[in-house]
Amino acid sequence: MGANMARRLKDCGFDVSVVYDVNKKAANALAKEIGAKATASLPKVTEQADIIITVVTDDAAMDAIFNPEGRSLLTKAEGRIFVNCATVAPATHVRVEKLAHAAGAESLEGCMASSITQARDGTLYLMLGGEESTFKKVRPVLRKLAKKMIYIGEAGRAAQVKALVNMVMNINTAGLAEGLGLADSLGLDIDKVMEVFSQTGANSRVLQTDGDDMKNRDHECYFSGAHAAKDSGIALALGKQQKIKLPLATATKKQFDLMVKKGLGELDKSGVAELTFKGRNA
Amino acid sequence: MGANMARRLKDCGFDVSVVYDVNKKAANALAKEIGAKATASLPKVTEQADIIITVVTDDAAMDAIFNPEGRSLLTKAEGRIFVNCATVAPATHVRVEKLAHAAGAESLEGCMASSITQARDGTLYLMLGGEESTFKKVRPVLRKLAKKMIYIGEAGRAAQVKALVNMVMNINTAGLAEGLGLADSLGLDIDKVMEVFSQTGANSRVLQTDGDDMKNRDHECYFSGAHAAKDSGIALALGKQQKIKLPLATATKKQFDLMVKKGLGELDKSGVAELTFKGRNA
Repeated sequence: MGANMARRLKDCGFDVSVVYDVNKKAANALAKEIGAKATASLPKVTEQADIIITVVTDDAAMDAIFNPEGRSLLTKAEGRIFVNCATVAPATHVRVEKLAHAAGAESLEGCMASSITQARDGTLYLMLGGEESTFKKVRPVLRKLAKKMIYIGEAGRAAQVKALVNMVMNINTAGLAEGLGLADSLGLDIDKVMEVFSQTGANSRVLQTDGDDMKNRDHECYFSGAHAAKDSGIALALGKQQKIKLPLATATKKQFDLMVKKGLGELDKSGVAELTFKGRNA
Repeated sequence: MGANMARRLKDCGFDVSVVYDVNKKAANALAKEIGAKATASLPKVTEQADIIITVVTDDAAMDAIFNPEGRSLLTKAEGRIFVNCATVAPATHVRVEKLAHAAGAESLEGCMASSITQARDGTLYLMLGGEESTFKKVRPVLRKLAKKMIYIGEAGRAAQVKALVNMVMNINTAGLAEGLGLADSLGLDIDKVMEVFSQTGANSRVLQTDGDDMKNRDHECYFSGAHAAKDSGIALALGKQQKIKLPLATATKKQFDLMVKKGLGELDKSGVAELTFKGRNA
């Protein structure tokens, strides 16, 4: 994701000065490709860039790169702007914003409701959270990455909406997998069933993006089952905090957890159909 | 539903000779409106019509109107064609077709993936099951009721697809209610959240049809929560028969059952949001 965003910014004429990845080989290869420097030091990233875009795996990784007590992106960060694009807990974005402010820097959530291809093409769907003045400063850069940007509100708000988007998307995905799996077991023509779905109340974005993949068992990963499990977990934590019962989201989390448990977590989320089609991995 | 189909056929110049309803007042009023006869006798329906369109509440009602041992639609039914439009178990359509054949008549499933308004406008989405030759005989009439017809296969097949459509639609509806309910509890702007949903992987047909209604608590009934519970039950029975686990459909059925238990079963299916928005009926 981050690599494709870097490629895209380079294409648009921006000076991508430095790249960092926990996988040093990947960082070196990308640096070579786009004419940037690679570094294994987080403070060196901050030193060499005005705007730092981060895309990490999870909350723990966010806390690590924004560690206020060690050498991190926060080291000598005055005047820098961090744009944090990973899907992490809303509270993490709030915490990171506070730490950035304390370091004389600014921080913005740039939650993405899109995938690797859109990062490369500059057609991301970006939801922004943080101070609006910060958003305005980085907007010219973000505009080259996104076909659509929507400012949601204060820090943590974009991550909340992102968690909701993924929660509903995951529910629809797991539900579609049940519909197509049952159709298949009944000996129905899946293409005809999908045609009917597309023209009725069963239609959804995931029918368009994942329906054929579920049928064809083509689970090349755009958004993994493991990620779906993690993101549904973020939403469930919000639900618990708000004391709201979310039985569908709970059942969905269990399905994606089961994918992970069965060693299918690195398949695309469409791989949840492996659990609902007879004679597959279930 | 049946009344609106009768009105539409009358508008299209067909001779709607006779109407029947368990609610005699409703039958009399409709008969007066469209210049048909009303009858309280099922055999008289069969006597006075070539094509008999049925829309009943459930499987028990189907078995009652097609009772081979009493006075029913099957009485002196030779040469008649029944088009059965209710959402009932696939096995019921198979049984009714056999009984119709035994009586020298024909039977067709005309499963509708649409609602009352579409019946009035002649813009139903019709899924047909039964002998294709029967379908061809009644096609000129059905064409006036439907903007789209799709022949699915032998008797029971259309009802299977219909059950799948409603199963997936109900999952998406209950899932959307969770997303919007959680968004509301977090103090997010629901309109903004729906805008984001509509442009991302969370988009679905039910977002378009039910999203605003969930927000505004406008649950005027097009498809009731009780019907959703029933239809999800039909799908779950198929799943059980096929030995397929359907955790999302199961959780969904429980939500619509809960609506019924709380006395909300006659609200539109969008009323499932009453269970997921804080401070409503939950």
